[in-house]
Amino acid sequence: MAVRKLYGIVGSTDTIRALSSLFEHELEFEFIPLDLKAKATHHNNDPILSLNPFGQLLVFQDDDLTLFESRTIMRFISHEYAKPGEEQVYLVPKQQGIAATWIDVEDHQFDPPASKLRQELVDKPRSGLPTDENVVAEEEAKLIEVLDVYEERLSNSKYLGGDRFTSADLTHLPNLYYLMDASVTKQLFYERPHVRAWCNTIMSRHAWIKVVEMVQKIVD
Amino acid sequence: MAVRKLYGIVGSTDTIRALSSLFEHELEFEFIPLDLKAKATHHNNDPILSLNPFGQLLVFQDDDLTLFESRTIMRFISHEYAKPGEEQVYLVPKQQGIAATWIDVEDHQFDPPASKLRQELVDKPRSGLPTDENVVAEEEAKLIEVLDVYEERLSNSKYLGGDRFTSADLTHLPNLYYLMDASVTKQLFYERPHVRAWCNTIMSRHAWIKVVEMVQKIVD
Repeated sequence: MAVRKLYGIVGSTDTIRALSSLFEHELEFEFIPLDLKAKATHHNNDPILSLNPFGQLLVFQDDDLTLFESRTIMRFISHEYAKPGEEQVYLVPKQQGIAATWIDVEDHQFDPPASKLRQELVDKPRSGLPTDENVVAEEEAKLIEVLDVYEERLSNSKYLGGDRFTSADLTHLPNLYYLMDASVTKQLFYERPHVRAWCNTIMSRHAWIKVVEMVQKIVD
Repeated sequence: MAVRKLYGIVGSTDTIRALSSLFEHELEFEFIPLDLKAKATHHNNDPILSLNPFGQLLVFQDDDLTLFESRTIMRFISHEYAKPGEEQVYLVPKQQGIAATWIDVEDHQFDPPASKLRQELVDKPRSGLPTDENVVAEEEAKLIEVLDVYEERLSNSKYLGGDRFTSADLTHLPNLYYLMDASVTKQLFYERPHVRAWCNTIMSRHAWIKVVEMVQKIVD
């Protein structure tokens, strides 16, 4: 059996993205939580951290393969361990290109405002820090523009990448996990009917429920 | 024959990335330069700009397929039009995963400081604006960290993605086009022997020379 290990910070969206893909493909793996403080010492030749040359706290090992970018890990798993009939990547280049577009859209359009809103609305309150309402207003406006495009897309297509659940949907789950916890952002998703239906569908997947259970167990 | 059209701003790195992939695969296409000012009016139902729902000035059409993210366009072309024996994407998932890592590294690590340095060292001087030396110092420090990782990688591998030229290398060309024009940044590449050899190799490719000729002809 392949020796599979994922090193990461359990609450980070990059780690959650990789975990989601592993659970979706029902792969056995060992999860090794890293210490957030470790980042400051990654030049100390830490054998794990040296596997990610940019010092980010995410490394996936699959036998002799080492990967460290979360969307690449997701893409790799969906290719290498595709379940026949439920592939999370399309094999036809044109369909694959459409789904890949929405992976890049998440990376370039959705993730930036989502991450900043998470920081202001979830992370800061948890640390007892005040939320910056100007940042919230600015990033909310950006997220609204993105969600308007998603609403349009999802009114013509059940999933973002096409007619079935693919990595293009999965890649959004980590930020949804946090944004659905804040009433301000939850409303932005819920007042758009096709976005709401999409969120409910992808967040009720068996694999995602297992990821959430795992994350909450480690965080508690 | 397929009807292929690329709409873009000729000097933008996203457009240059798509052009490079088209030339590398020797594909016939029509290039339709867009007006930079058009962006401000993209809500005016411009039929071209509406194809890119985020209002960015890049659209690729290949028969009935429409794509608008430059790295996705590059990935799609390398899959759909792969030249046997010189594929710019690996077909084996593990090798493809390694090359995909460096596409994401370019996107997340290389492009941010490269774009800001281009702005300060190339765009601003051309527009008669003063360069902000603090920004240059800050972004140069970030680029140096990235290039140190590249030097290490390229001392073990001829190309970033593996043993042959792939999209992982191609995706760097648009920023190199500008950074090699500024002595400050050119030196950062040239003082690292493996990075220098890699730059010289990928910038002397036949397709790249044709892209540069085309860009310069339109810009002049």
